[in-house]
Amino acid sequence: MSEGASAGGHRSTGRRRATAAETPPTPIRSRAYRRLVNPFAHPRIYSDDQVAAIHDAALSVLENKGMKVLSAIGRQRFRDAGATVDEETLVVRIDRGLVAKALATVQGEFTFHTPNPEFNVPIGGSGVCFATTSGPPNIMDIHGGRRAGTLVDFENLTKLCQSFDVMHSIGGAVEPQDVPVHLRHYATTRSMLLLSDKVPFVYARGSKQIADCLEMLRIAHGVDADELTRRPCTWTVINTNSPMQLDIPMAEGIIDFAAAGQVLIITPFTLSGAMAPVTITGALTLAHAEALAGITLAQSVRPGTPIIYGSFTSNVDMRSGSPAFGTPEYAKAAFGAGQLARHIGLPWRSSNATASCAPDAQAVYEAEMSLWGALMGGANFILHAAGWVEGGLSTSYEKFILDVEMLQMFAELFQPVGAEPADMAVDAIGEVAHGGHFFACAHTMERYRTAFYSPLVSDWRNYGTWEADGAKTATQRAHAIYRKTLEQFVAPARDPAMVEALDAFIERRTAEGGAPLVS
Amino acid sequence: MSEGASAGGHRSTGRRRATAAETPPTPIRSRAYRRLVNPFAHPRIYSDDQVAAIHDAALSVLENKGMKVLSAIGRQRFRDAGATVDEETLVVRIDRGLVAKALATVQGEFTFHTPNPEFNVPIGGSGVCFATTSGPPNIMDIHGGRRAGTLVDFENLTKLCQSFDVMHSIGGAVEPQDVPVHLRHYATTRSMLLLSDKVPFVYARGSKQIADCLEMLRIAHGVDADELTRRPCTWTVINTNSPMQLDIPMAEGIIDFAAAGQVLIITPFTLSGAMAPVTITGALTLAHAEALAGITLAQSVRPGTPIIYGSFTSNVDMRSGSPAFGTPEYAKAAFGAGQLARHIGLPWRSSNATASCAPDAQAVYEAEMSLWGALMGGANFILHAAGWVEGGLSTSYEKFILDVEMLQMFAELFQPVGAEPADMAVDAIGEVAHGGHFFACAHTMERYRTAFYSPLVSDWRNYGTWEADGAKTATQRAHAIYRKTLEQFVAPARDPAMVEALDAFIERRTAEGGAPLVS
Repeated sequence: MSEGASAGGHRSTGRRRATAAETPPTPIRSRAYRRLVNPFAHPRIYSDDQVAAIHDAALSVLENKGMKVLSAIGRQRFRDAGATVDEETLVVRIDRGLVAKALATVQGEFTFHTPNPEFNVPIGGSGVCFATTSGPPNIMDIHGGRRAGTLVDFENLTKLCQSFDVMHSIGGAVEPQDVPVHLRHYATTRSMLLLSDKVPFVYARGSKQIADCLEMLRIAHGVDADELTRRPCTWTVINTNSPMQLDIPMAEGIIDFAAAGQVLIITPFTLSGAMAPVTITGALTLAHAEALAGITLAQSVRPGTPIIYGSFTSNVDMRSGSPAFGTPEYAKAAFGAGQLARHIGLPWRSSNATASCAPDAQAVYEAEMSLWGALMGGANFILHAAGWVEGGLSTSYEKFILDVEMLQMFAELFQPVGAEPADMAVDAIGEVAHGGHFFACAHTMERYRTAFYSPLVSDWRNYGTWEADGAKTATQRAHAIYRKTLEQFVAPARDPAMVEALDAFIERRTAEGGAPLVS
Repeated sequence: MSEGASAGGHRSTGRRRATAAETPPTPIRSRAYRRLVNPFAHPRIYSDDQVAAIHDAALSVLENKGMKVLSAIGRQRFRDAGATVDEETLVVRIDRGLVAKALATVQGEFTFHTPNPEFNVPIGGSGVCFATTSGPPNIMDIHGGRRAGTLVDFENLTKLCQSFDVMHSIGGAVEPQDVPVHLRHYATTRSMLLLSDKVPFVYARGSKQIADCLEMLRIAHGVDADELTRRPCTWTVINTNSPMQLDIPMAEGIIDFAAAGQVLIITPFTLSGAMAPVTITGALTLAHAEALAGITLAQSVRPGTPIIYGSFTSNVDMRSGSPAFGTPEYAKAAFGAGQLARHIGLPWRSSNATASCAPDAQAVYEAEMSLWGALMGGANFILHAAGWVEGGLSTSYEKFILDVEMLQMFAELFQPVGAEPADMAVDAIGEVAHGGHFFACAHTMERYRTAFYSPLVSDWRNYGTWEADGAKTATQRAHAIYRKTLEQFVAPARDPAMVEALDAFIERRTAEGGAPLVS
């Protein structure tokens, strides 16, 4: 058959369908997505010498320019650790020996624990996990348009995250703007703990909010505070204020999370040309310096604090200043960040991002460039893996589903390909007539049920059939899928005593006035 | 800045724009896309031993099952080469010694020559080139819908190919169904030669059509027939009829092209579960055997015939038989095909394909999966790189433009990243205030004009601006871009004497009755 002519499924397949009696129960294919391992070697944009030179340049930056640390508590911790602190300028200069001491105690691998250990997530090595988008204030769908996020939307996104094995963690999937900020973390944490088994997140919005969240997690895990410090069960993102500044809630978030033994995703957000140098290598050098500062602080608070080296380096449109995502620069920066993370022995985090204002073709090619860049770069944790649009200002329900389709395809890409004699199928090739087909031969009949990935969104039908069924685009089908997934959602079982304790805590803290956001 | 909060370009950038006096002339960035080199290492799905075992299994298939060759001329050539031919069954069995002899004369690298040598395309090694889609009978755009392709559409697609440096070759971008088949090759070849400098294609539709096309190319190159055999200047795709059959025009195309010293893209089209085994490894084993048969025939006609090892392996939907493209299986098969091609020392070809019936999100993620699979797999020639939708039954104008955007992003991905001290920007980092910005520092001002890729389709503006401008999707913008590109098209200059000779040839051959299609 010519590749041009009859592709499209017009042929009658003549394939016999298996009868019910012959069909063994099929294990749920997606269960394999719960523990993903990326088997592929990483592309490199730098030689080993260049990586070492960037690391050395970053160390020089920390010794000379230093990091401006707005938090007095943070500066004191740096001082205690041996850094040079200038109380006039608020600048902390960190000797490379201190950095080396910190890097000697980082963990290359650790595990996120969930109350149901089936949902534990190993971090590091060749492992890969995906978390929802985190931080957008708005929500959109193709029928309702764009509006401010609500708690119902946050809960919907938590339910969607729960519904797909390929999603491992839930971030701040949308800001519930209908809940006052001093109470918001109670609502979101409760939702995550009751509606999902996946790893929940915490925002670094001040010590009081963090303490509240860790207490809620402690209740959910049914352990004491001491045991919780040995059980990484949540993460927070620490963004530096590039270039070379650490704001108050960020420094204090590092300290609080390190003290609690919880996971810090220390992520300079470096847009080349804007708050970072216009060269990719300059942006990575700056980001590396800032990350090392955060790592040093964390390790000085608690040696062995689990940290994920975060990289979120992209470029801007130099004519307008608009951030761009999923660009060639973004992908190359991801390759480079992976090399730097492996140089210092930490697992690392990347993102799936787009500047598109709609769940359209641009959103998808920018997502794919982000994902391939991150995953080939060896990222262990992909934040914003599902739902992000509009430079992070909105979450799209349809994009969430399109992203899940893409993520499932990566999960399948990572599954090994058999190359035993039976896989080479020489006997089957011998049996089938020249110019014939393999639909009904034994080799196919034994394998067809599980041979291939069955898509969530993709429509492979021929044009006539697709058109007669309404000529729906992938984005339209994604809309229907998210609605149906929510309709079919069943919340996981929870111990009523645990729920009661959680609610009692929330009630008490609410009566006490909650915990204001610190900025 | 937090990655969640202010992404979206709401900030005033305060960036000073360079004055006209300060702006040096900018070289056209895309000129670098004319010669692409992929610097990245290839992911592997097989160990070296497994690759060798697949190769060995393929040799066994050729010795035992053999290839059914419908062309008597083809069978005679195989017989002359030393293969065992059964005239009853039409099956040719090829000893591994004959295959080894053929593989000893293949070229690892060669160059496509164009009349204007600026557009020559090197093939092999780490080189990459992109050709349009080839073969679809239908055309579509989002306003006109789907209809039969015409000569005007073919010319439009030739003009679009000419308009972008990232496109290196033009295939049968749509079938001009308004031109009778016995004359069609005159019209399409003339259009390619007059409207484009890129490498043109030829269909293997019988010796007469091939001879006509090669004569037209000879006229365009201004050389004699003997010189043309030393100047690869066109390609034809040879699809085997999987499993294990070579149809008449395909065998005769191999013979004619080999005799003429022109490039054969020998491509088994193997859909796992349909005309190939349901395992990826089985499909690749089958495809490898068929490719080796074609290579053996070609090398026996002319040792050193330039050949590109073609792989077009995907899966089907086992419930319906519909072909699928850009799937995880497709990408893994591309990785494996690359390993097999390198094992035998040939450059190789892959594709950019989708089963989507529209230029929508599915078309794009399947395209990206195809492209990343092919390019990370080390493919040197990507056919169908731009325009393909609907399993190859239609060409979409919008998809063409979306694909060009994606291809340009790959071209940029391949460009090296500087890691000199100036790239690390330590001085600039030292100069810029903590928490400040890099927009106006010298390091940025010296580089910003050329620092980043400027997109063709992508819109990075904030939501308010995008919405006020009509809330256009990427597909809608692609439509406008293709229309504008065609409006602005200027045909390349041609020697009037050459055009006259070409037209005289076409007139004479038309009067003689043209050349019927052979199938």
